Amino acid sequence: MTPYTFNKDTIAALSTPHGTGAIAVIRLSGPQSVAITESILRTKDLRPKRLAHQPGHTAHFGLLVEKDVVVDEVLVTIFKAPHSFTGEEMAEISCHGSVYIQQQILQLLFRHGARPAEAGEFTLRAFLNGKFDLSQAEAVADLIASNSATSHQVAMQQMRGGFSHKIKVLRDNLVNFASLIELELDFSEEDVEFADRSDLKKLVNSIRQIVDKLIQSFELGNVIKHGIPVAIVGKPNAGKSTLLNVILDDDRAIVSEIPGTTRDTIEDDIVIDGVLFRFIDTAGIRTTTDVIEQIGVNKAFEVIRKSAIVIYLFDAHELSRGDLELELKLIREHIGTSQLLVVANKTDVENINDLQKEYEHIDPILYISAKEKQNIDGLKRTLVNLFDNRTVNTTDTIVTNARHVNSLHKANEALHKIMDGLDKGIPGDILALEIRYALDALGEITGEVTSDDLLGNIFSKFCIGK
Amino acid sequence: MTPYTFNKDTIAALSTPHGTGAIAVIRLSGPQSVAITESILRTKDLRPKRLAHQPGHTAHFGLLVEKDVVVDEVLVTIFKAPHSFTGEEMAEISCHGSVYIQQQILQLLFRHGARPAEAGEFTLRAFLNGKFDLSQAEAVADLIASNSATSHQVAMQQMRGGFSHKIKVLRDNLVNFASLIELELDFSEEDVEFADRSDLKKLVNSIRQIVDKLIQSFELGNVIKHGIPVAIVGKPNAGKSTLLNVILDDDRAIVSEIPGTTRDTIEDDIVIDGVLFRFIDTAGIRTTTDVIEQIGVNKAFEVIRKSAIVIYLFDAHELSRGDLELELKLIREHIGTSQLLVVANKTDVENINDLQKEYEHIDPILYISAKEKQNIDGLKRTLVNLFDNRTVNTTDTIVTNARHVNSLHKANEALHKIMDGLDKGIPGDILALEIRYALDALGEITGEVTSDDLLGNIFSKFCIGK
Repeated sequence: MTPYTFNKDTIAALSTPHGTGAIAVIRLSGPQSVAITESILRTKDLRPKRLAHQPGHTAHFGLLVEKDVVVDEVLVTIFKAPHSFTGEEMAEISCHGSVYIQQQILQLLFRHGARPAEAGEFTLRAFLNGKFDLSQAEAVADLIASNSATSHQVAMQQMRGGFSHKIKVLRDNLVNFASLIELELDFSEEDVEFADRSDLKKLVNSIRQIVDKLIQSFELGNVIKHGIPVAIVGKPNAGKSTLLNVILDDDRAIVSEIPGTTRDTIEDDIVIDGVLFRFIDTAGIRTTTDVIEQIGVNKAFEVIRKSAIVIYLFDAHELSRGDLELELKLIREHIGTSQLLVVANKTDVENINDLQKEYEHIDPILYISAKEKQNIDGLKRTLVNLFDNRTVNTTDTIVTNARHVNSLHKANEALHKIMDGLDKGIPGDILALEIRYALDALGEITGEVTSDDLLGNIFSKFCIGK
Repeated sequence: MTPYTFNKDTIAALSTPHGTGAIAVIRLSGPQSVAITESILRTKDLRPKRLAHQPGHTAHFGLLVEKDVVVDEVLVTIFKAPHSFTGEEMAEISCHGSVYIQQQILQLLFRHGARPAEAGEFTLRAFLNGKFDLSQAEAVADLIASNSATSHQVAMQQMRGGFSHKIKVLRDNLVNFASLIELELDFSEEDVEFADRSDLKKLVNSIRQIVDKLIQSFELGNVIKHGIPVAIVGKPNAGKSTLLNVILDDDRAIVSEIPGTTRDTIEDDIVIDGVLFRFIDTAGIRTTTDVIEQIGVNKAFEVIRKSAIVIYLFDAHELSRGDLELELKLIREHIGTSQLLVVANKTDVENINDLQKEYEHIDPILYISAKEKQNIDGLKRTLVNLFDNRTVNTTDTIVTNARHVNSLHKANEALHKIMDGLDKGIPGDILALEIRYALDALGEITGEVTSDDLLGNIFSKFCIGK
């Protein structure tokens, strides 16, 4: 990661997904983007094709040629600085989507003066050129990774600057006070107070409330980004794996309409009504008292506690009212703050009315048949409703990034010290220092305060070509 | 496949490879391309964004919006008919490369009047709108599938119209004669000959020569497209699999630099110096006389005969001069027209000078050590040279398409009948009929003579989005 050489050199990378498609797009950014492209571009009858005098945001057909060998017929779109994604001069080469051709064109560009872009370097340049702030840049990566309606909307809102704006307002208010207090220090001999301490208290309090709310939103933000953790527990014969398969199979049918979706990593994730659920394997959890002592069971209960929703599934054909009550008692002891959803399986062999009588007054129970796929939609609706009850409003600012939460915690700590100091009437210079800490912590989020290490760390997680 | 509804409706599809990338491109083609895109496009502050009055080949930043929810920030490039790939009005939407976003935008476009493009439908429309002929359209698919320098160059030449031009010249010459002969038929009462029979003979002869040469080029074209078949044979302990692994491993290292290359289907393919070789599994071939009778060995020898190159690998540490001579005699009996490359393995345990003395005057022998990777580059160079000896000149027209060869064979048959008929002085009406047959056969290649079935068959093999 060498941010300081940006602007001087021109980078190039494949920006569309890897593999074979109808077309692929190779991007260049930097002062030589158009010149390098022009140097290998020809008209249909192999005469030089001029791009340099063309206006930005225009597309041009041509042949990419090296030593009279035509590498491809392409469409080149050029962008003039600062009116481009990176803020630099850019060229986008839309070529035929063969892996071979993609590689040939990249090699050709590298031989003609471009260098391979590092991971996230296009977005890094956009940030360094002031096209957007750091939290917006991070939202670009979140947006690309988004796989549900909620994660998409939260990332989109962050990319469009909703979060940044909120942080900026907080900082601006604090900056005013910091200036006043620093002014006092210049006049320290005279013992004046330019900054009204009670106004400062009010401000810090209101900022703390907002920061607290943002920190609290992370629990939800994390769930939106990584999926709502759902544990399915119950005795081994309750039909857990059948239920999981039924839920996932439906999803698989949907996912398989989207070729190329990597199945390996989302094996147990499903999106229901735009909400991402992450099913956690609780294989081996048995809730009867006789196995509770077994090694590993405690660990399994830890999974339960980490889940937002616990589905307790039982075989309605097997479990008596008394046994069910015992089981649920045990579950509740270990469930923590998770929401419990009690599900009676095997309505295919038992009459629902009989069951409702048998289990009356125990709990709201959902009746399904995993095997016969009865009321699976009802179960899914219930899951989505349990999530909605957590009051998601994607127009609210929701923090989804651990780095941001970390900075918010640092800001909160400094704000706490400021309040404490104001109560104790500490000197202005110490107050000024703490306000600086709070400002820096908030500035880290948007990148107003940053370092090469931090930038390297953030952008190296991007894909190449972004 | 419904080619006749084209022009009336607007199609949309993802044109970049499936999966997640920095960006993805969705293409629209048809009269409503710009209107549909405009209907969901907004400015940064969510006001309507006008595209209709914009000139073609220009790119426009905007937000894709449905019911005030921002789906993505995109760049839309518009193309005015007939100045586009398909010859129709087109729009290309460059969006963020999340699978979720790609699907959301496609669904949005479908809800606003576009319909999903069928496989190859963009290219089909380009063909139907006269942007290129059928053999050029087929070359687009070949180009996307190309994975070596030679297959790429042959496809590129075909796409740029080299082959089409050659066929057109042949047809034009024949058309002249067909007209003259058909004119004779109008004056058949008067027994005149407008078409000079000896000129026609000369012409048909020269056309046949060209058609023959094109048919012959298919052997090479097929090899370029699908790889040069190479069989490695030898006794089980000769080191065949070690050699294959050494060759393929080197290649794997190269291939792995290109993420997304599907390994399953090219497991035994390697590109050396831009030439694609296809190694054929001959596991089980033993050439010693005592196993020659075994079941399956004849089948293995069939593989040898189908290979362009046969590497006979032997263990120089084990095989005496006499045994080697016996082995090679047997191989030669079964090798057909394949080229034989005799390779002595295990130079790591034997002195090359000693070996060269031992096997003097037998054959040109290449000395390697598969285990120690000695002279593997020499072996690869030799393979490439054996291919070059088959006189490849990618600026020659090389037929790579089985459909084209089939049509050429049909043309050849008709030309043969014309020559025969001219010798026997058959009447003009029969001559005219055979000339029509030849014209139709040639016309099938470029698509001047075509049918819905043929088009459906060709374009359904394309990917969606092309």
